[in-house]
Amino acid sequence: QFRAEFLEMHPYDQAKIFEEQTQDIRMQIYTYLSPEEMADVMEHIDLEETETYFTEMDPRFAAQVLSEISTDDAADILNELDKNQVASYLTIMDDEAASDIKELLYYEEKTAGSIMTTEFVVVHANQTVREAMLHLRKEAPDAETIYYIFVIDEDKHLVGVISLRDLIIAEDEWYISEVMSDRVVSVQVGEDQEEVARMMRDYNFLALPVTDFQNHLLGIITVDDVMDVMEEEASDDYSKLAGVSDMERPDEHAFQAAKKRLPWLVILLFLGTLTANLIGQFEHTLNEVAILAVFIPLIAGMAGNTGTQALAVAVRSIATGDNEKDGIFKLVLREAGTGLITGTTCGVLITGIVYVWKGDFFLGLLVGISIMAALIVATLAGALVPLIMHKLNVDPAVASGPFITTINDIISILIYFGMASTFLKLHLLIS
Amino acid sequence: QFRAEFLEMHPYDQAKIFEEQTQDIRMQIYTYLSPEEMADVMEHIDLEETETYFTEMDPRFAAQVLSEISTDDAADILNELDKNQVASYLTIMDDEAASDIKELLYYEEKTAGSIMTTEFVVVHANQTVREAMLHLRKEAPDAETIYYIFVIDEDKHLVGVISLRDLIIAEDEWYISEVMSDRVVSVQVGEDQEEVARMMRDYNFLALPVTDFQNHLLGIITVDDVMDVMEEEASDDYSKLAGVSDMERPDEHAFQAAKKRLPWLVILLFLGTLTANLIGQFEHTLNEVAILAVFIPLIAGMAGNTGTQALAVAVRSIATGDNEKDGIFKLVLREAGTGLITGTTCGVLITGIVYVWKGDFFLGLLVGISIMAALIVATLAGALVPLIMHKLNVDPAVASGPFITTINDIISILIYFGMASTFLKLHLLIS
Ligand SMILES: [Mg+2]
Ligand SMILES: [Mg+2]
Ligand SMILES: [Mg+2]
Ligand SMILES: [Mg+2]
Ligand SMILES: [Mg+2]
Ligand SMILES: [Mg+2]
Ligand SMILES: [Mg+2]
Ligand SMILES: [Mg+2]
Ligand SMILES: [Mg+2]
Ligand SMILES: [Mg+2]
Ligand SMILES: [Mg+2]
Ligand SMILES: [Mg+2]
Ligand SMILES: [Mg+2]
Repeated sequence: QFRAEFLEMHPYDQAKIFEEQTQDIRMQIYTYLSPEEMADVMEHIDLEETETYFTEMDPRFAAQVLSEISTDDAADILNELDKNQVASYLTIMDDEAASDIKELLYYEEKTAGSIMTTEFVVVHANQTVREAMLHLRKEAPDAETIYYIFVIDEDKHLVGVISLRDLIIAEDEWYISEVMSDRVVSVQVGEDQEEVARMMRDYNFLALPVTDFQNHLLGIITVDDVMDVMEEEASDDYSKLAGVSDMERPDEHAFQAAKKRLPWLVILLFLGTLTANLIGQFEHTLNEVAILAVFIPLIAGMAGNTGTQALAVAVRSIATGDNEKDGIFKLVLREAGTGLITGTTCGVLITGIVYVWKGDFFLGLLVGISIMAALIVATLAGALVPLIMHKLNVDPAVASGPFITTINDIISILIYFGMASTFLKLHLLIS
Repeated sequence: QFRAEFLEMHPYDQAKIFEEQTQDIRMQIYTYLSPEEMADVMEHIDLEETETYFTEMDPRFAAQVLSEISTDDAADILNELDKNQVASYLTIMDDEAASDIKELLYYEEKTAGSIMTTEFVVVHANQTVREAMLHLRKEAPDAETIYYIFVIDEDKHLVGVISLRDLIIAEDEWYISEVMSDRVVSVQVGEDQEEVARMMRDYNFLALPVTDFQNHLLGIITVDDVMDVMEEEASDDYSKLAGVSDMERPDEHAFQAAKKRLPWLVILLFLGTLTANLIGQFEHTLNEVAILAVFIPLIAGMAGNTGTQALAVAVRSIATGDNEKDGIFKLVLREAGTGLITGTTCGVLITGIVYVWKGDFFLGLLVGISIMAALIVATLAGALVPLIMHKLNVDPAVASGPFITTINDIISILIYFGMASTFLKLHLLIS
């Protein structure tokens, strides 16, 4: 009765329950369930956990499970296992499944090829609607989706697409060529997965065909996997902005979490000593006017914050591809303008505040002008660094939030003390 | 020929081209296209732009277009228009469309109700597969999706669901009750859209039924709209972390961009004067040991960075709902541990660096211990502030990146100078 109860559930819920079991119970479940039923569960297991489970299974059973899993998910799982294990499964597995999966293993991570599956339904343009429906009924149990049917010619070139919606309202005797759309939107197999997600979202597709450069149909990408891509890419951008190398999972221990955060912190610590060194150069000035130190965190902090804002906007516009048409020049102008407005506003405000608070207009002006200059430069730096990296085809990951913040700390302190010591010299000259 | 060429394209491409036209040409397009064709275009236009276009159209035409648009999108568009305009369109429109849309207008933003549509296909459990298919063919042109068919009883309670995939492989004479799944996953109409997206992604659904608290079927949410929700929520979290009140669009002018960034910056400026004031309290200590100032940005910067990391991890785990089961206590313990590890590592490192650099072990120890303490407190603050806000049902938006950074600036400076002046007193006592 456990089996019946378990199989009534959605595979996602089955997977969640499965993950909570002890190894003993899992070993029993492997004997209760058929490879096909186990495959449904495994498709919904966190990828990081799959290695444990497959290693527990009898290799023959594991290979059977793998050949029942959608080829895209099977390839993802094999990428988690060690080479020998993969080789032995591929040998036991039936040839057709093995060769499909082997092909998928070659595509680079984060490309269209890495998220496509080979279980799609194709028909020919000269088939009738009736023939296509019969074919579809036969393919339905195994295909990843039957809601889009792709039309190919004799050489497997992609020539059209028809939705099941259009197919079921078409007359049985019509030819596919009459009902299909021959304007198929497709992606190249090497296309960035983020671009795939963007197209899927813009066009509201449920699946997108993937072709090679000669327009041969290689696979399809389904919307469920695109949702995972969107989540992954969003998490990625978010982590970068926060300077966490890889988002942690809530069940990780403090030690694992620290391991993910420390690399950034250590780099930033060294960058920070540069700031310290820089201020050290102005020790003479500081000794004379200790009150200058009071405004260091304010100025550095404001520069860091503006820089992060500009960075976020630039990274976001790169990610959504919105900046392509405008070019760098326009964006730089805009950011310069934004920096000027925010800088002037904050500069004037702080001049007033310092004047009222300390009764020293000269000091107020110094802090105000420093903030203004720092904000303008920080805004430009925040926007330019990721843009330039993007144009140079470098991953803007390096320009993450804390990095920009530290750069801006340095720049703003340079501005502040540079200005202070110049003012001070002038002051001495005058008096 | 323009018309034929235009209509060959995907509505998304039509919309992009339409948006690039001058008003004169748009006025012509309104006369070329039927309300139905125009509706397809309008469904793919940026929401912010729709007001301009509808206001340009003849009111009768506009009302016809609106009644051809999916009800979810029509409601979104009406929310952009002014009250009088909405009232007049709803009066001209045919009654059925108007009443459907009116209902949707009542649901709160960011709930399941606000993203659902009312154009779904229902059948009854006692119908046969043949009858269901006939009904489906009739509904296909207007339904938002025909790939999931929902099964209701006489009182419109949701009792089952069947996919078109299962329907086309079923025998014509079977009853729907025999082929449907009676374990329907559904959401309440007031459910958070983020939770809806999470379910859709976990269960790989193409559509999700929405019910009221008595299980009456009110509408369905389709996967294309969920992709938009995912994008919107990700953008939102990202903006908050960066302290930009609302993500800018790349075509905005510097002035508009500055308007979105300034509120944060001004708040942070005032918070920053607190930091300045705080350091001011230690002016006496600073006058004595000016070199202390050298390490201010390093310590404050490191605290800010760790705080942002912890904040990001906490916000992310709130967003994915992963932290629900563990409770605050476990997370606090974990973050304390993480802070201890990162703090000790960075503290020991900087003690060594300062000792080698300045030849002053005492100073090194002071900076090292300060960094360690600052990192532990900053990690805890970064994690706790959003968690506590979440538990209090306050939007963690207020705990955005720059806010946490500034809080941590203050805390870390307090620790550093507090420690420095205590050490100094001890030092004076000893010598
Ligand atoms: Mg893959
Ligand atoms: Mg990418
Ligand atoms: Mg869309
Ligand atoms: Mg898949
Ligand atoms: Mg998948
Ligand atoms: Mg990305
Ligand atoms: Mg809405
Ligand atoms: Mg929400
Ligand atoms: Mg999924
Ligand atoms: Mg919709
Ligand atoms: Mg939509
Ligand atoms: Mg959210
Ligand atoms: Mg800072």
